[in-house]
Amino acid sequence: MARILVLHGPNLNTLGIREPDHYGSETLADVNQRLVEKGQKWGCQVDTFQSNIEGELINQIHSSMDKYDAIIMNPGAYTHYSYAIFDAIQAITVPVIEVHISNIHTRETFRHSSVIAPACKGQIVGFGTKSYDLALMAVREWIEGA
Amino acid sequence: MARILVLHGPNLNTLGIREPDHYGSETLADVNQRLVEKGQKWGCQVDTFQSNIEGELINQIHSSMDKYDAIIMNPGAYTHYSYAIFDAIQAITVPVIEVHISNIHTRETFRHSSVIAPACKGQIVGFGTKSYDLALMAVREWIEGA
Amino acid sequence: MARILVLHGPNLNTLGIREPDHYGSETLADVNQRLVEKGQKWGCQVDTFQSNIEGELINQIHSSMDKYDAIIMNPGAYTHYSYAIFDAIQAITVPVIEVHISNIHTRETFRHSSVIAPACKGQIVGFGTKSYDLALMAVREWIEGA
Amino acid sequence: MARILVLHGPNLNTLGIREPDHYGSETLADVNQRLVEKGQKWGCQVDTFQSNIEGELINQIHSSMDKYDAIIMNPGAYTHYSYAIFDAIQAITVPVIEVHISNIHTRETFRHSSVIAPACKGQIVGFGTKSYDLALMAVREWIEGA
Amino acid sequence: MARILVLHGPNLNTLGIREPDHYGSETLADVNQRLVEKGQKWGCQVDTFQSNIEGELINQIHSSMDKYDAIIMNPGAYTHYSYAIFDAIQAITVPVIEVHISNIHTRETFRHSSVIAPACKGQIVGFGTKSYDLALMAVREWIEGA
Amino acid sequence: MARILVLHGPNLNTLGIREPDHYGSETLADVNQRLVEKGQKWGCQVDTFQSNIEGELINQIHSSMDKYDAIIMNPGAYTHYSYAIFDAIQAITVPVIEVHISNIHTRETFRHSSVIAPACKGQIVGFGTKSYDLALMAVREWIEGA
Amino acid sequence: MARILVLHGPNLNTLGIREPDHYGSETLADVNQRLVEKGQKWGCQVDTFQSNIEGELINQIHSSMDKYDAIIMNPGAYTHYSYAIFDAIQAITVPVIEVHISNIHTRETFRHSSVIAPACKGQIVGFGTKSYDLALMAVREWIEGA
Amino acid sequence: MARILVLHGPNLNTLGIREPDHYGSETLADVNQRLVEKGQKWGCQVDTFQSNIEGELINQIHSSMDKYDAIIMNPGAYTHYSYAIFDAIQAITVPVIEVHISNIHTRETFRHSSVIAPACKGQIVGFGTKSYDLALMAVREWIEGA
Amino acid sequence: MARILVLHGPNLNTLGIREPDHYGSETLADVNQRLVEKGQKWGCQVDTFQSNIEGELINQIHSSMDKYDAIIMNPGAYTHYSYAIFDAIQAITVPVIEVHISNIHTRETFRHSSVIAPACKGQIVGFGTKSYDLALMAVREWIEGA
Amino acid sequence: MARILVLHGPNLNTLGIREPDHYGSETLADVNQRLVEKGQKWGCQVDTFQSNIEGELINQIHSSMDKYDAIIMNPGAYTHYSYAIFDAIQAITVPVIEVHISNIHTRETFRHSSVIAPACKGQIVGFGTKSYDLALMAVREWIEGA
Amino acid sequence: MARILVLHGPNLNTLGIREPDHYGSETLADVNQRLVEKGQKWGCQVDTFQSNIEGELINQIHSSMDKYDAIIMNPGAYTHYSYAIFDAIQAITVPVIEVHISNIHTRETFRHSSVIAPACKGQIVGFGTKSYDLALMAVREWIEGA
Amino acid sequence: MARILVLHGPNLNTLGIREPDHYGSETLADVNQRLVEKGQKWGCQVDTFQSNIEGELINQIHSSMDKYDAIIMNPGAYTHYSYAIFDAIQAITVPVIEVHISNIHTRETFRHSSVIAPACKGQIVGFGTKSYDLALMAVREWIEGA
Repeated sequence: MARILVLHGPNLNTLGIREPDHYGSETLADVNQRLVEKGQKWGCQVDTFQSNIEGELINQIHSSMDKYDAIIMNPGAYTHYSYAIFDAIQAITVPVIEVHISNIHTRETFRHSSVIAPACKGQIVGFGTKSYDLALMAVREWIEGA
Repeated sequence: MARILVLHGPNLNTLGIREPDHYGSETLADVNQRLVEKGQKWGCQVDTFQSNIEGELINQIHSSMDKYDAIIMNPGAYTHYSYAIFDAIQAITVPVIEVHISNIHTRETFRHSSVIAPACKGQIVGFGTKSYDLALMAVREWIEGA
Repeated sequence: MARILVLHGPNLNTLGIREPDHYGSETLADVNQRLVEKGQKWGCQVDTFQSNIEGELINQIHSSMDKYDAIIMNPGAYTHYSYAIFDAIQAITVPVIEVHISNIHTRETFRHSSVIAPACKGQIVGFGTKSYDLALMAVREWIEGA
Repeated sequence: MARILVLHGPNLNTLGIREPDHYGSETLADVNQRLVEKGQKWGCQVDTFQSNIEGELINQIHSSMDKYDAIIMNPGAYTHYSYAIFDAIQAITVPVIEVHISNIHTRETFRHSSVIAPACKGQIVGFGTKSYDLALMAVREWIEGA
Repeated sequence: MARILVLHGPNLNTLGIREPDHYGSETLADVNQRLVEKGQKWGCQVDTFQSNIEGELINQIHSSMDKYDAIIMNPGAYTHYSYAIFDAIQAITVPVIEVHISNIHTRETFRHSSVIAPACKGQIVGFGTKSYDLALMAVREWIEGA
Repeated sequence: MARILVLHGPNLNTLGIREPDHYGSETLADVNQRLVEKGQKWGCQVDTFQSNIEGELINQIHSSMDKYDAIIMNPGAYTHYSYAIFDAIQAITVPVIEVHISNIHTRETFRHSSVIAPACKGQIVGFGTKSYDLALMAVREWIEGA
Repeated sequence: MARILVLHGPNLNTLGIREPDHYGSETLADVNQRLVEKGQKWGCQVDTFQSNIEGELINQIHSSMDKYDAIIMNPGAYTHYSYAIFDAIQAITVPVIEVHISNIHTRETFRHSSVIAPACKGQIVGFGTKSYDLALMAVREWIEGA
Repeated sequence: MARILVLHGPNLNTLGIREPDHYGSETLADVNQRLVEKGQKWGCQVDTFQSNIEGELINQIHSSMDKYDAIIMNPGAYTHYSYAIFDAIQAITVPVIEVHISNIHTRETFRHSSVIAPACKGQIVGFGTKSYDLALMAVREWIEGA
Repeated sequence: MARILVLHGPNLNTLGIREPDHYGSETLADVNQRLVEKGQKWGCQVDTFQSNIEGELINQIHSSMDKYDAIIMNPGAYTHYSYAIFDAIQAITVPVIEVHISNIHTRETFRHSSVIAPACKGQIVGFGTKSYDLALMAVREWIEGA
Repeated sequence: MARILVLHGPNLNTLGIREPDHYGSETLADVNQRLVEKGQKWGCQVDTFQSNIEGELINQIHSSMDKYDAIIMNPGAYTHYSYAIFDAIQAITVPVIEVHISNIHTRETFRHSSVIAPACKGQIVGFGTKSYDLALMAVREWIEGA
Repeated sequence: MARILVLHGPNLNTLGIREPDHYGSETLADVNQRLVEKGQKWGCQVDTFQSNIEGELINQIHSSMDKYDAIIMNPGAYTHYSYAIFDAIQAITVPVIEVHISNIHTRETFRHSSVIAPACKGQIVGFGTKSYDLALMAVREWIEGA
Repeated sequence: MARILVLHGPNLNTLGIREPDHYGSETLADVNQRLVEKGQKWGCQVDTFQSNIEGELINQIHSSMDKYDAIIMNPGAYTHYSYAIFDAIQAITVPVIEVHISNIHTRETFRHSSVIAPACKGQIVGFGTKSYDLALMAVREWIEGA
């Protein structure tokens, strides 16, 4: 059975509570539950984890080896300066998909570039919380195609 | 019935013929056929168009009003400098999804930024020709959710 | 009798139809008709041409030699990157006036600079579609003063 | 009766006396007289003012409220660094047209950008001293159209 | 009764112990005690928190909702690169005042800009540890004025 | 008795009259009167001065030696380019506090940096016209502590 | 028999007619005829093509596969921004030599860099229309050496 | 007896496990053991610590005062953006040697500069895990020379 | 008899009074007197003028035509941003020598470049107040050589 | 009889010995001999000179006046920073052709620009050691055409 | 027996004579003698060479092939701009260690980057003249490990 | 008796022979002779030296210690990139005056900045070959004042 880790970076614990204009009104718990359920339908295990602490996200990435087939990660603001997360993703062979809820290219300039993108397999940006679902579909495609 | 326009920019006519390392071995005809068939299964009409001429792509974008519910566009190298395509997308209300076959962030520096992205609803990058399929799923989600 | 060519660049065919906040509600046909009529009153022939294709605009600029006394051009988004249009204007002796409908200096950063301006005689920016009329007056002044 | 203030910035008092290659051979008095007379023909009052002192130009801009319907301003070299003049224009509701005698885009690099332009309604650049006349026509159009 | 959270970022635990030339000789405990006492005199509760870990500061910012009326924050070196703290402040409605003990504009270049400032209500910089006291007065003014 | 000079730079004479969204609705006379009265309560003399002319502000700074114990200065737009004011402040031993009414970090990019800040003792930014009051408190603290 | 395609980009149709100071007085027809004749002497077929339209040049590059042994291309102003032409050259295995008539390094700054050069085998710059002849000699050397 | 703290930053826990091409095949435990043993031979105590969390590394740096004579630190990716670690090193008097296993100057551009280097006594870069040993020798030289 | 104008820009009225480390202990009156006396010995009239107001310096430059044979100018901080003074010097035929008392290249970065230098005949930098004397010698050489 | 000087800059003495991937396997002696022989066939004298010392190359350039009709120069790495060689070429009237063996535009970024190119008549880049031969043909064309 | 070449670049002949604050008080002769003696103890031959002339250093690097097992080089100020030395090191297979006596990261900005570092095996920076000794140890480790 | 060394950098040996528009028509020998004679009149010994080789100029600077009281140096194009000459000047206590014959600020951009200026006592720029004479006067003033 396929196993997928969904990683949420800093401030995503406030999803659905703060700034619904940018991120939609679902809570992170809602999103996680939907992803887990979709995973079950397709016969795959979806685990989720959120932290505001850069190093804890790195720890999760390290420990994914031999435990997960893919990571879906929304790195939040760490997207724009965390070379440490970039290094962590480089150091593993588990494929990582970078997702963003809003279209980062229509917001502040500092959000237009991602230091993490070159270490990822792909990016899905701007589809609201459905960005996670599309990433799940992309993983499924890989796994079923394999 | 939903109608979707798939726009392919410059050099995509060589898909599957040139540089298969970056873009996979399917031809553009293969991709188009698969998208049309997937569209039919979901009850939606998928039309496709390719041109190497910037202005012809702009013409297609203009004429999409009242004819299509969404555009899925791979702007090719125009991604990086065609403010004219940006303006064309800004001028219509049909939502546009930007797709790229390869992960543009791991290639030459000039491919890392998109002048078109701020006018699009979302980006899907790096999943091979399946980037188009994921965009089709994203459109379906919108339309069925509407 | 003086002859003037009015050139409209990419996306201007959508004038009055799309984004009236930036560009006013007249259509391009309305503007062209007004300019032609004003020309007639002043005893000068005004021809108009619009294209979304960069090279077709260049063709028009080339063929203006011996046919026109002045060009009034709104290069649209090509303003910001078309060194080919800059070269075309450099290559002719017909004077060119660059016009913009909106104040390009209050919009996105990429619109603040014009690569075409150094090849033109003057710029008229920000007076709505009346920017064209002011350019017509400027040309009249030249011709009647000559 | 419409009232228009024509503001001339630093070094314009030397017009027609120094560097006629760039600015033409008319003196500032000649230009002012022509603008006043054109104003009279159209039934509008044109006042003129020149200063080399940044703060005195700002004072004139402030005191234009309730006294003028429009300002035509050639900010001279202050165009390129006076954020204080930018602020003054922002602080009033009287519309300002920025004019330049020569085509600033064909001269030194520092003249290519204007910090004042984003606060103005429009720019007229490169028509010799006739740039002022075209600005007057633009104002007339506004006022008569209003 | 008004409640205020004082947040101290990385390295501020060494205050009064290290580099007294830049930061004065009081310890962080001294500063905290003075702020708490001043708060008591004005009838407001002042809580304090220090951490060297970026994510723990973010956690405190999140949990301030419904618990505090204002935050006074010295982000230390995170001032210059933590877009994650910027996002956290953006995500709450509690007003935040950014304070710095030394004049950051007279030190190394990297300290001259703050990525956090655009999310804050105001900045108080350069008054030694009294910068905190001035921020407390500013908050009092708000609350008493409300 | 302590003596304090409050210097207002360009365009601050329009305070309360223009752009109340950014600067609040009090006039400069209101602010000055409040500061003078607060000074009287604390037993200190507060003098005020406003000019749109850079050199007159410099003259005031020079003549403050032996006449004032501190200067509170809002340099307006000169904040961003007047190295001459920077030099004037450097040349005196009277301490200067830079104040801004609005949060300059949330406005146009050119307002994000201050060329004057390195010559000042501290900055207070973003508390409306109360920024001046906080500066007055900071000065009082210095003088009473001395 | 070797086959060579000579591609001329935008504005080269005006060669010998416009701006002879930069480009010499021969017409493009003269140059083409000379190249064809030189080709005939060396027993190779030389075909020529000119267009002002970026996409038509791309079409020619694509269709060169299996038809030509080498391309000699003067991309005109597209040299400086057409990543689409860069991509087209990357996508074929036919070797391309970039030529320029004038020394682009002594003209405007924007002409100093070529986005196309990294996809080409070599560049020949600054020998007037003889740059094409030298390119023809270089191709001959390859083919005869092969 | 001299005491030395060896600090390993983010991702170094994967040493010898991931990306052996860049970092060699020894594990971090191997390196630590060798350094401890070398320390024992020279009569000095070597302690080691690794964390992926920026703030925990700062905590270790703070607590080194009075406990260690020198720190040998590989800051990993924090090298390139952690001004907070820079500040922590500035705040102590214990000398710090920055080490890197690979030659950071031959890898990605972002690795070419170190924001931490100005706070360190020296750097040793590019000798594989022997970089740590060379740093140990440098410390020994200091201590025995003292 | 030769006539020379010595212009002193902003803050030079504080010479010898403020910051003697950078500028020496002579007052501006001392320097002016010495220059006038040296002028008298050489049979030339030396006039001096100081202002903190940019526009007044421009007025002096304008009025120098037909009155002076050369200008020796220390533009103070206006050196670094006053394009208006640059324009004023450009507009006259009287030669101008730019002088600086201290070596501007060893001070803050903003002092390393002069926007005025391209309009001047020469610069003399770093010889204390003797920079003015050397400029006087240079002028004498010109006049006597003429 | 025409005389041509071939100048080889730093490291070209290692040609054919080091890094044959970039520069081909011929030695510099081989190349020189071939150029001399080709020169003889065409009735022209070819002299060659190599030095790793910048000033010795400048000396050769200076002494070429009245001795040579053209210089063919491969400036090696001095291409990218030797303004002194640029000045030397500017100071003579002998035409200089800049050649490079490899395509410098496909190598490290620092090799993409040439500070020497603006002083040269033309550049030939990327044809292996045949770049020298093409330059010889270009010179012959000039001389025979003269 | 191992053979090592120690290369000293420009100005190192003044070591111990000039600026002892940055470089220590030993002369270059002292350092060379110590390195030779240390080499003898370890059974290896150490040769030394100093020159202020860039090209002579390049000559030494070239001639090291087949004569030396390693080079220890302090390139002095050439570190920051000599792409010619970079090329020389690239062209040989002898490993080079770059050393600096002072911590170049705490000095002027231009010293923070090395154009030579990417061609070297490692860097040792900031340990006074002991930087050379540590480099010698690193070489010994390589050779004894081989 | 005072002793002064006049150093001429690269290409100055062509003075009076090449490009008289920029540098005047005197030869270097003429200038040297005049300086020696002026020195004799004032009772000081003037020695002169020219080289195109950077390292030979450095050698002269080093050997000036104990032999000269001042150096007058025209570094030619090395002005703009030779950090090695900067270091050499830093390393001695003999004061150095930088001179330039032409106004470097009115020529190419690369000539506007000097990497050597921060190590010099002063600069004299733009007075033709009389720049050397003015420097001699400046030295005389120092020595006679001492």
